[in-house]
Amino acid sequence: MVKQQLVYEGKAKRLYQTDQEGVLWVEYKDSATAFNAEKKATINGKGRYNNEISSLIFQLLQHYKIPTHFVKQFSKTEQLVRETKIIPIEVVVRNVVAGSLSRRMGIEEGTVLSKPVLEFYYKDDDLGDPLINEDHMNILNIASQDEILQIRKMARNINDILINYFNKCDVRLVDFKLEFGIDHEGKLLLADEISPDTCRLWDIATNQKLDKDVFRRGIGSLTDAYAEILQRLKEVNQHV
Amino acid sequence: MVKQQLVYEGKAKRLYQTDQEGVLWVEYKDSATAFNAEKKATINGKGRYNNEISSLIFQLLQHYKIPTHFVKQFSKTEQLVRETKIIPIEVVVRNVVAGSLSRRMGIEEGTVLSKPVLEFYYKDDDLGDPLINEDHMNILNIASQDEILQIRKMARNINDILINYFNKCDVRLVDFKLEFGIDHEGKLLLADEISPDTCRLWDIATNQKLDKDVFRRGIGSLTDAYAEILQRLKEVNQHV
Ligand SMILES: Nc1ncnc2c1ncn2[C@@H]1O[C@H](COP(=O)(O)OP(=O)(O)O)[C@@H](O)[C@H]1O
Ligand SMILES: Nc1ncnc2c1ncn2[C@@H]1O[C@H](COP(=O)(O)OP(=O)(O)O)[C@@H](O)[C@H]1O
Ligand SMILES: [Mg+2]
Ligand SMILES: [Mg+2]
Repeated sequence: MVKQQLVYEGKAKRLYQTDQEGVLWVEYKDSATAFNAEKKATINGKGRYNNEISSLIFQLLQHYKIPTHFVKQFSKTEQLVRETKIIPIEVVVRNVVAGSLSRRMGIEEGTVLSKPVLEFYYKDDDLGDPLINEDHMNILNIASQDEILQIRKMARNINDILINYFNKCDVRLVDFKLEFGIDHEGKLLLADEISPDTCRLWDIATNQKLDKDVFRRGIGSLTDAYAEILQRLKEVNQHV
Repeated sequence: MVKQQLVYEGKAKRLYQTDQEGVLWVEYKDSATAFNAEKKATINGKGRYNNEISSLIFQLLQHYKIPTHFVKQFSKTEQLVRETKIIPIEVVVRNVVAGSLSRRMGIEEGTVLSKPVLEFYYKDDDLGDPLINEDHMNILNIASQDEILQIRKMARNINDILINYFNKCDVRLVDFKLEFGIDHEGKLLLADEISPDTCRLWDIATNQKLDKDVFRRGIGSLTDAYAEILQRLKEVNQHV
């Protein structure tokens, strides 16, 4: 496998073409951004934690027959994935009220939701990633009605699997963000990453934040938090 | 029918109890507000136009078997309505891109939508009436799944009827806001008002704005615009 030209550089990752058609080489960076990139920092080791954690989680999801872009972990900071056309939607799944949901609805952070809440955000930095509904997706021609249905179903399944997994790690899965893409064969795949950058993870006993909110709010060491998550995931992983 | 104590005073109307159980007396005020009441003014005649226009439109909708709160017009500025428990949702129906949809999605004002777009806003001034989705409505216990379905259906029917009616008036129905309530018998009724305060209405030939945007943007006489709408509605009404 040979790394070829850079395809895309985002806030957290670099994607490269490879000599294998349809396979991308992903490099996780050590940069942290928040508030639509208004707050930025370099944090040594962050790329490694996210790559390792996301690789573990994607392997788990594949074990449960969720179709994902993940091919294999390549190094501490790199992985191979199937190339997709990303659907420009951030799918957010929430089990506990936090962040923008608390602000939008005036509900206290920490309130447990009786049913998971799904939200779709239009992935557009210039527009500030606005919340949208299915009619908005239709007029943007972002996804077909059938794709939206599949996405909803997969998001709920992934939520069930991850709640369970994190629960075994004594971590509460508060909320998380998913991205989906269409591969060369027209198949809908879970893409991007699932990591403490894209989840809210609270220690079950203490409610200590073990995710990017540590950076957003400046409340401690981000790498300590991510290292803690990785260690707990690995321990549980050995016993499954 | 005797007017009794004030039940509620909003930005545009006063609601009074009457001596008849379940019937409210509505008085349309001459006040105009915009941008969550940041811009305010008294505009003589506005209450009259809105009362007359809304009465006309609700009668038309009742003719088409839409269940509404409307009982009868009582005077130039007053009407009687069935009392309801208002569902705290503003249902917005859009046929052409304008206002917040243009800002949210980065689509140019005036873009014609291939299908109507429905939006639900949580009616809460302190939160700035945020856009929400059906999952949000569920967690707020705002409406049952069945009520939401009924609301969607009624909103689409009302849109079809009103597009047609305004079209006959050489007016393009760009978008409008609806409120629904539950009456004493548990029946879902269209409530509140439908007027140039709650619709975007553009002259079909010139795109001249004939609605509250005249006030929001300070582009001419609001009463001239509302008078124009009332006159056109009355003319068409005579011929149906
Ligand atoms: N399998 C894939 N195929 C194509 N693009 C992908 C895939 N997985 C993730 N991406 C995209 O890679 C880009 C880089 O990731 P990231 O640095 O996290 O970007 P961002 O700054 O948008 O968060 C993102 O736009 C993401 O949607
Ligand atoms: N049939 C009804 N029963 C009870 N309340 C109603 C009915 N129709 C309208 N209302 C409510 O009357 C209130 C006054 O109207 P308005 O002055 O337009 O209020 P707002 O300032 O919220 O726009 C609103 O809260 C509206 O929801
Ligand atoms: Mg990202
Ligand atoms: Mg009102």
